[in-house]
Amino acid sequence: MVQPPVLGMVGAGQLARMTHQAAISLGLSLRVLAASDGDSAALVAAEVEFGDHRSLPDLVGFAERCDVVTFDHEHVPPEHVRALVDKGCTVRPGPDALRYAQDKLAMRARLAELRLPQPAWRSVTSYDDVARFAAETGWPVVVKAVRGGYDGKGVWFLAAGDRLPPVECIVEERVRLRRELAVLVARRPSGEVRAWPVVETVQRSGICVETVAPATDAPADAVVLAETIAVELDVTGVLAVELFERDDGGLAVNELAMRPHNSGHWTIEGARTSQFEQHVRAVLDWPLGDAAPTATYAVTANLLGGADPNLAGRLSAALDADPALRVHVYGKEPRPGRKLGHVTALGDDLVTVRSRARAGAAVLTGEPQPTEEPQPTGEPQPTEEPA
Amino acid sequence: MVQPPVLGMVGAGQLARMTHQAAISLGLSLRVLAASDGDSAALVAAEVEFGDHRSLPDLVGFAERCDVVTFDHEHVPPEHVRALVDKGCTVRPGPDALRYAQDKLAMRARLAELRLPQPAWRSVTSYDDVARFAAETGWPVVVKAVRGGYDGKGVWFLAAGDRLPPVECIVEERVRLRRELAVLVARRPSGEVRAWPVVETVQRSGICVETVAPATDAPADAVVLAETIAVELDVTGVLAVELFERDDGGLAVNELAMRPHNSGHWTIEGARTSQFEQHVRAVLDWPLGDAAPTATYAVTANLLGGADPNLAGRLSAALDADPALRVHVYGKEPRPGRKLGHVTALGDDLVTVRSRARAGAAVLTGEPQPTEEPQPTGEPQPTEEPA
Repeated sequence: MVQPPVLGMVGAGQLARMTHQAAISLGLSLRVLAASDGDSAALVAAEVEFGDHRSLPDLVGFAERCDVVTFDHEHVPPEHVRALVDKGCTVRPGPDALRYAQDKLAMRARLAELRLPQPAWRSVTSYDDVARFAAETGWPVVVKAVRGGYDGKGVWFLAAGDRLPPVECIVEERVRLRRELAVLVARRPSGEVRAWPVVETVQRSGICVETVAPATDAPADAVVLAETIAVELDVTGVLAVELFERDDGGLAVNELAMRPHNSGHWTIEGARTSQFEQHVRAVLDWPLGDAAPTATYAVTANLLGGADPNLAGRLSAALDADPALRVHVYGKEPRPGRKLGHVTALGDDLVTVRSRARAGAAVLTGEPQPTEEPQPTGEPQPTEEPA
Repeated sequence: MVQPPVLGMVGAGQLARMTHQAAISLGLSLRVLAASDGDSAALVAAEVEFGDHRSLPDLVGFAERCDVVTFDHEHVPPEHVRALVDKGCTVRPGPDALRYAQDKLAMRARLAELRLPQPAWRSVTSYDDVARFAAETGWPVVVKAVRGGYDGKGVWFLAAGDRLPPVECIVEERVRLRRELAVLVARRPSGEVRAWPVVETVQRSGICVETVAPATDAPADAVVLAETIAVELDVTGVLAVELFERDDGGLAVNELAMRPHNSGHWTIEGARTSQFEQHVRAVLDWPLGDAAPTATYAVTANLLGGADPNLAGRLSAALDADPALRVHVYGKEPRPGRKLGHVTALGDDLVTVRSRARAGAAVLTGEPQPTEEPQPTGEPQPTEEPA
């Protein structure tokens, strides 16, 4: 009998949880490497191992019991990813691709080589370096930690005279932007690439709080740009390309993530194949699914823990208020500011769909949601990542 | 902190597997009582207990660790269901409702009291009883075991002179039928009822092999009939009402099931709220979700194990052949005739959608699928249930 492959994911956050949900349909059960038994995916998966994603022995032990290993986050040390490959493990995305999602300097340098659009940037080691850069682009500038940043962490806006943070950094121009966009594509090792429609993302304090799919009047070259990155960087699995749309309409790559991504949660109901199922197919080198939308608009609002972060007590009220709202609760211990779930509304009228998603989020978080279009801040926003 | 409720399901077949998948979105993890570690849901759920659904101690031990208990099948002895309630467990559907899905004599008598349409029938204990009934309705007649039948088991077509099977039976007229239909409704204890559109079901050897949602020209009274049964029998959770549409267009209730049902698998992608999520909401007495369709047509083909029942080796070919096909593999040990999965195609043109579902099933099962409309057989078909 042909046994289905054992797919393992390092990390057991909500991305692993939703990947497990999708894998079940394909006859699989995702094996996760969890840090603790309260991890979002550890609560629902049958095959849970406990270990530290920074420990090579833990990673090796886990990988040896998997046919393919993939990731819920970018925090596995690059040398460990490479060591797994050296030991014969199948790791997707592989270390040569993954480094561009782990190391902003490597990413910027590679995109420059490829002549792909991105903010003006420079590697810096001193305030003087930053000041020289700012003399060309103007203050303030954006300083980013080369490694380890996520959800607004590792990103600083520097004005003239501000101190440089004591970590390895790059500096980027502060992009005057019309809005932020994201393109998700999936690519399998044998080469097939499929992209979902471009989405608009709305960030607050560096965390994605809302996605609108598709983005209205999406620039025609955004999908080609994302596909090019997937191919040139030899990405396998889902690649999220976060983009700035400049005031003049030009695009600039903000961040890359090589895994299912917050900006793709709408695909669970809003696309024929979700980003989670597609990631499974892609890393197993199975044929990719149709990424076409299933509705005219899908708006996802993320549920960030508010002053009373306990969603469970408000779930019934949210279901009652909008029977067609799609609710996803991650089962995580509630804490203010933590990503605890998301809701997706679908329909033909964008204003209505957006307002339903926001209303659902307001009920579930117990926090008022913005009812106005947020104004472009002109400030680049860091990539989001599961908390 | 408000803890989410612990929902337990007795039985760990594919219905439990897909219920777990749906429960995850609501922040839950389905606890299942499995017979063995190879059970479909036991392969993917985090909280698996092992026990015998016919053992009262096993059931009590399981139920004591759940807030609400529901069922993957109808095979728990009725006296055990009642004993759980007597011990203070919350069981949904409750024993007073569930007996009508477990005992065909009780079901027929109750529907007769309610004056709801059903085939002519009689309780019989001898061949002479059957012969007297057949003198009124004509031979052959349909004999059904009062308890324990499923998937064509426990149903016999009797011609004059045939022996009566040695179990407690009822006899029913052989309905001349145009087609078979099914209506799924969900009902919560506090009374809310929601119905999905009527579907047409196609049976082969007593097993549902295909559902077409919605049924074309569905009779207007079918949904009301199913809702009436849900209310009058005090059903909680999902109720499947399998119907004959007679040659003259009249309806007759064939079977009842009080759980997610094969005829509702299309709702996973084809309705805003799937039968699995709705069952969870209903038995927890949470507000029900919108049951509106998401596509013009959804056709589901069941994957019955063929001569070479191993689906896993053909999965990649099926995904490749139709990237928009939705594939569900249950992870069960492959055996000829066993329900191993299902596929759903969605779209605007019924002929195309149906042919895609059948083509996908043909690739996955390795068996040719019917390309013509099956002709009505004039023979009633027994209810289907997970094998």
